[in-house]
Amino acid sequence: MAFDRLIEKIIETQNPTVVGLDPKLSYIPEEIVNECFKKYGENAEGAAQAFLIFNKGIIDAVCDIVPAVKPQCAYYEALGWQGMKALAQTIEYAQSKGMFVIEDGKRNDIGSTMEMYAVAHLGENKVGENTFKPFGADALTVNGYLGTDGIQPLLPICEKEDKGMFVLVKTSNKSSGELQDRVLDSGDTIYNAMGKMCEEWGKESCGKYGYSAVGAVVGATYPKQLSEMRKLMPHTFILVPGYGAQGGTAEDVKGAFDERGLGAIINSSRGILTAWQKKGLDGKDFAKGAREAALEMKADITSKIPQIK
Amino acid sequence: MAFDRLIEKIIETQNPTVVGLDPKLSYIPEEIVNECFKKYGENAEGAAQAFLIFNKGIIDAVCDIVPAVKPQCAYYEALGWQGMKALAQTIEYAQSKGMFVIEDGKRNDIGSTMEMYAVAHLGENKVGENTFKPFGADALTVNGYLGTDGIQPLLPICEKEDKGMFVLVKTSNKSSGELQDRVLDSGDTIYNAMGKMCEEWGKESCGKYGYSAVGAVVGATYPKQLSEMRKLMPHTFILVPGYGAQGGTAEDVKGAFDERGLGAIINSSRGILTAWQKKGLDGKDFAKGAREAALEMKADITSKIPQIK
Repeated sequence: MAFDRLIEKIIETQNPTVVGLDPKLSYIPEEIVNECFKKYGENAEGAAQAFLIFNKGIIDAVCDIVPAVKPQCAYYEALGWQGMKALAQTIEYAQSKGMFVIEDGKRNDIGSTMEMYAVAHLGENKVGENTFKPFGADALTVNGYLGTDGIQPLLPICEKEDKGMFVLVKTSNKSSGELQDRVLDSGDTIYNAMGKMCEEWGKESCGKYGYSAVGAVVGATYPKQLSEMRKLMPHTFILVPGYGAQGGTAEDVKGAFDERGLGAIINSSRGILTAWQKKGLDGKDFAKGAREAALEMKADITSKIPQIK
Repeated sequence: MAFDRLIEKIIETQNPTVVGLDPKLSYIPEEIVNECFKKYGENAEGAAQAFLIFNKGIIDAVCDIVPAVKPQCAYYEALGWQGMKALAQTIEYAQSKGMFVIEDGKRNDIGSTMEMYAVAHLGENKVGENTFKPFGADALTVNGYLGTDGIQPLLPICEKEDKGMFVLVKTSNKSSGELQDRVLDSGDTIYNAMGKMCEEWGKESCGKYGYSAVGAVVGATYPKQLSEMRKLMPHTFILVPGYGAQGGTAEDVKGAFDERGLGAIINSSRGILTAWQKKGLDGKDFAKGAREAALEMKADITSKIPQIK
């Protein structure tokens, strides 16, 4: 149920972090890019193949030490349908290596349209007699601005297939406060109100660790709000972006965890994907650089939180 | 600039409506579906080809009388990358027939990630020496929960390539009020506050009709709020979902228009796509049914608003 599978992977690896797979050609060793251009053309297909090879290398390098990956849809969509194919292949590959996949698509819509997003990203589709998984991720990020009509359509799939969602509550960016920090006449901030809605949406779906299928996104760049939301949303698992490149530190994110060292997963994308460049490694060692950076991140975060159990 | 191209198409066709291209296999005549299954397989590719043939038929039938189409991404994503390919082909075909294409993806993210969505859905990407349009729509629906960081990255492309966005303000669904109707300590509702942000985001990009590149989504199912938002957002073009199948009437949407009959475009999806079934027409006349329904909708809406000029 709910995020039990993710939590078990976190306990197994003793690592509450997720590697963001936000590929750009500039992060990928030249040899890989050139080989793909030669084989598939200097075009969307060539770039998509380079994304896939790079992602597979990162996944191979971290799958025994990191519980999850988080591909960000925008980077794949920017290569059109070829990029979306690479996204689906990346998700499938990560799962074949035992990883939990959080698709970062921040999708939102209502009713039967939101059901289509559920089918697309978490479930199965059926055409004639054939069923297939369009993207088949384990969890999806969503935007709750439309209310229950945008959340409820995901719940049956979450329940049936042990999947989850993360609703944007307090995002990591500078301007997140323009709307999210405004104060309602009830005295709540908007992000507070959204957090309470997450608790409400999730209340029927708590798993064995006490967390529901409705998680939340709260940024590492707002440590005070992270601690506040951990308390306000006791059944809501938190996905925390903004560590590393965006400025969040281990000290900043520790308030997202409960007394068992659970309740949150911290994302790093650029910090892992471009580690080989920052460490001055050769392109052929890009995966080695990612593994080192992932271990450094694990050590950094776990040094500040209770032992995971 | 801004929505000038769309507004000119509306004036030319004397029709402030848009046909939503939200295909489902059950809307498509059996002959088309069976032919595609036979040719491409009873799978995602066969279904995507059926979507494309159906969409082309609808576009051919309405392109001289309707200014725009609005494909909803979720229906295409549910077929995986094959669906996304059909989406890109649909957009390209509609544009080749002179139509303005609003991609309904409700995308949202921040900074460089939002820039990738801009590249994906409105702009061009460059791989090596080759540039290409991943989806290349004329406008994109977006969700403003993340504030300026989620909007600003689209503005340069809107300016440079005469494109636009529609920010969710007050959505047509029943539960939209759970968050959007809450009252801030300033006395504004959240949808009010979002509408004011749209005016602010758009203020540097007004085109010759007085509307900016930052439009808003306000549902036909909330007529009072539509009139209120028309007044509160004098430079914000409004995309109005919820007419027809969702219950909104011409009387309900008239408040979205200004005294020139401009300022809004009303969407209908199911009402047009399934007209052949509702009218009891044969499958081979699905496009004829769509054209009739589009003309009926035009007559209905324009009977309630000032003459378009």
